[in-house]
Amino acid sequence: MRLRNVKGAALIIEKSSYVIKNPEQYKGNFAKLFNNSNPIHLEIGSGKGDFIINMAKKYPDINFIGLEMFDSIMVRITEKLVNEDIPNLKLIKMDATYINDVFDHDIDTLYLNFSDPWPKKRHEHRRLTSLRFLKRYDSVFKTKKIIIQKTDNRKLFEYSLKSFTDYNYKIEELSLNLHLDDYDNVETEYERKFSSLGYPIYMVKVVK
Amino acid sequence: MRLRNVKGAALIIEKSSYVIKNPEQYKGNFAKLFNNSNPIHLEIGSGKGDFIINMAKKYPDINFIGLEMFDSIMVRITEKLVNEDIPNLKLIKMDATYINDVFDHDIDTLYLNFSDPWPKKRHEHRRLTSLRFLKRYDSVFKTKKIIIQKTDNRKLFEYSLKSFTDYNYKIEELSLNLHLDDYDNVETEYERKFSSLGYPIYMVKVVK
Repeated sequence: MRLRNVKGAALIIEKSSYVIKNPEQYKGNFAKLFNNSNPIHLEIGSGKGDFIINMAKKYPDINFIGLEMFDSIMVRITEKLVNEDIPNLKLIKMDATYINDVFDHDIDTLYLNFSDPWPKKRHEHRRLTSLRFLKRYDSVFKTKKIIIQKTDNRKLFEYSLKSFTDYNYKIEELSLNLHLDDYDNVETEYERKFSSLGYPIYMVKVVK
Repeated sequence: MRLRNVKGAALIIEKSSYVIKNPEQYKGNFAKLFNNSNPIHLEIGSGKGDFIINMAKKYPDINFIGLEMFDSIMVRITEKLVNEDIPNLKLIKMDATYINDVFDHDIDTLYLNFSDPWPKKRHEHRRLTSLRFLKRYDSVFKTKKIIIQKTDNRKLFEYSLKSFTDYNYKIEELSLNLHLDDYDNVETEYERKFSSLGYPIYMVKVVK
């Protein structure tokens, strides 16, 4: 994602009621934040936020948390939310590397949408489906582990499928051309763009 | 595959020294047939035989067995072999449904190339990657189980990946566009045709 420098982004984010400050305080107890016991779904890398916002609107009985590490991107989401009232949506500005500082058996489902493919072998450990990250996710999940990945990047998807099965996840749903199939799919900004260019979108739901 | 009726096919097949008669006699002891202890690789559905013949020529230290159930197709393979001397290649004319009558801990690697997708749900059990077939393969393998599948059929491939992981196979290699990748690939007749039309060829190697 090409970043435009947004002046005062940090301040705008700071002011948004959607952004959780000091999220560590809810570790192991995110139900308290939402004030209900509904399932909690987490997206790592929410980008411009279309997916997490539309999911939250579509499924009011599920709580959604969007993680985004860049101020300049996070500010796009908060701008979209200025005139919205979505009680089941929260955002956290953080690097997913430190996910275990914030979540402890809190999450039901994890979304990885159009993550950075980090194509170089020496950057493999940065991929969100690397063994290193899959291990981190273990204690993030309540009990059953559900990861749903979408990407247009063939190499990342091939890598992820191997990685998931190496780590004993099983494939529950799979599409090698999501937009030709009959899935109840909420699109991201990137997905719209790449799909409209005729590229296949890959999707997998794995469980453990 | 569209079948042309070949007159006298059964007789031609009967005469070929490549075709194993009464293969049940070698059950659990196929090393005896080849008169060596090299690994044995099996292809179910050898079609016109290009894959199994070229593999056998390319890898003389591996024994290859091709299964084909239709006389009218098997005869094409035997015709190609009339002037060939390939000691590490044998053929069996049989329906893979009865694979456990013929093999018992004999096989190292199984190839499923461009198998019939049997798209109707009620025909699922006929797919060579259905749970029913995966169970049959268990005792066909010596110890380690290796299956390599290639197909141009997206739905069959999606189904197979789910089925493999359901049955605890792990993905060791995967390509969602084989002909763009750097694999040491021996083509089938169908593969050449479909790939030349621009369709992606899917490949997966799973192990258990």
